[in-house]
Amino acid sequence: MTYCIGLKLSDGLVLLSDTRTNAGVDNISRYGKMFTWEVPGERALAIVTAGNLSITQGVITRLNTAIASAGDDPEAETILNATTMFRCAQLAGDVMREVQDRHRKTLEEQGAAADATMLLAGQRKGGRHRLFLIYSAGNFIEATEDTPYFQLGEHKYGKPILDRVIQPATTIPTALKAALVSMDSTLRSNLSVGMPLDLSVIRTDQLSFGIRRRIEQDDPDFQNISSTWSDALRAAFHDLPEVSSS
Amino acid sequence: MTYCIGLKLSDGLVLLSDTRTNAGVDNISRYGKMFTWEVPGERALAIVTAGNLSITQGVITRLNTAIASAGDDPEAETILNATTMFRCAQLAGDVMREVQDRHRKTLEEQGAAADATMLLAGQRKGGRHRLFLIYSAGNFIEATEDTPYFQLGEHKYGKPILDRVIQPATTIPTALKAALVSMDSTLRSNLSVGMPLDLSVIRTDQLSFGIRRRIEQDDPDFQNISSTWSDALRAAFHDLPEVSSS
Repeated sequence: MTYCIGLKLSDGLVLLSDTRTNAGVDNISRYGKMFTWEVPGERALAIVTAGNLSITQGVITRLNTAIASAGDDPEAETILNATTMFRCAQLAGDVMREVQDRHRKTLEEQGAAADATMLLAGQRKGGRHRLFLIYSAGNFIEATEDTPYFQLGEHKYGKPILDRVIQPATTIPTALKAALVSMDSTLRSNLSVGMPLDLSVIRTDQLSFGIRRRIEQDDPDFQNISSTWSDALRAAFHDLPEVSSS
Repeated sequence: MTYCIGLKLSDGLVLLSDTRTNAGVDNISRYGKMFTWEVPGERALAIVTAGNLSITQGVITRLNTAIASAGDDPEAETILNATTMFRCAQLAGDVMREVQDRHRKTLEEQGAAADATMLLAGQRKGGRHRLFLIYSAGNFIEATEDTPYFQLGEHKYGKPILDRVIQPATTIPTALKAALVSMDSTLRSNLSVGMPLDLSVIRTDQLSFGIRRRIEQDDPDFQNISSTWSDALRAAFHDLPEVSSS
């Protein structure tokens, strides 16, 4: 499985992903699921992926090939020069549809799942920072004030803390804590989600990555959050009132 | 959906169930999913159910009909006179298989799911207290020292707190808190699990119900646990260390 989080806050965009892929519990690998592009001062964008790995790798390769072939040709439209983030999501969705068209039928005939989803987060110069969830069919939805976050993959274990904490006004430091607690809960409960993690932050109007970081198993920040949270939960539970037995 | 918990502790058995059933999000009803039988000083047992309601109602009706028809005939075997709890689980599993045999094919032909599961918990005079999880096929497994609890239905939201707290040595008061927190987390996150709740406790060697209680929306114990836990989580989260942004 996979667990990815995307948060759209007034202060910026936060993405967090795990790196475990599996074809059955006896066939586990490590693949980065976060991809970033940056033209400092112009735009920064990131994609995290979930679902069939051959599909999502195909999408990312095509997006990168398009950028490489475009070179300095201003007529060649790519996610690095598209005029809006909405248009970037359209381009990524179109590529998703192309790759699905190529492989889905055969995959399904052989009993495999072709589904894949992506979060695309970014900001271009002159535009707002935006977060999109792109589906297998290439269609997409955008995060709003009412629903300022998206999850991909194993969403249940990590959802309660996001529901309790994340609002558009949540600060980046608080959002980072919430994202890591959400990931920690998921890692503890689903073996098909695994370390290391990839974290990136695009602060509003910075047009570059404030954070782009791999978090390994022995990362002191993550270990600190994980153990402090665990201790605090135990203490909070201990202090709960008793239930009357009548 | 449904959420039911069964705990087997050294001190006794705890069962907690919700009461929401649904045939789609636009067709929600309330049905008790907990059924109890007691012959004080002789045996106490309880069943909680999940899955297709017509199947589980059919199973409970047949179990009760067997008890009614047996009367005082010592030759007629029922869950109230079977010589062991293992045999009670077999009887319930056999009835599950009969009901499945009667309805499963037609249900599946019409695109409906016939799956159903049950927890059977109890103790008879002279025996140990035991907890079984009975599947649609009538087979079953038993809770052990390694895995002292079972869940039915929407298990994900409420599993982390059980994993953190429940061990065979956990006391009944602590187990009640854990079960209610587990249910509270599930109620908050899955609309197809709903109040009121049914709670029962069979303390070891009491051979009767220590607690058999319906918990309504305005129950002071449940409200107290729910709000205290919510406040404690917020405070614990607030106190987490910051993540360095390098």
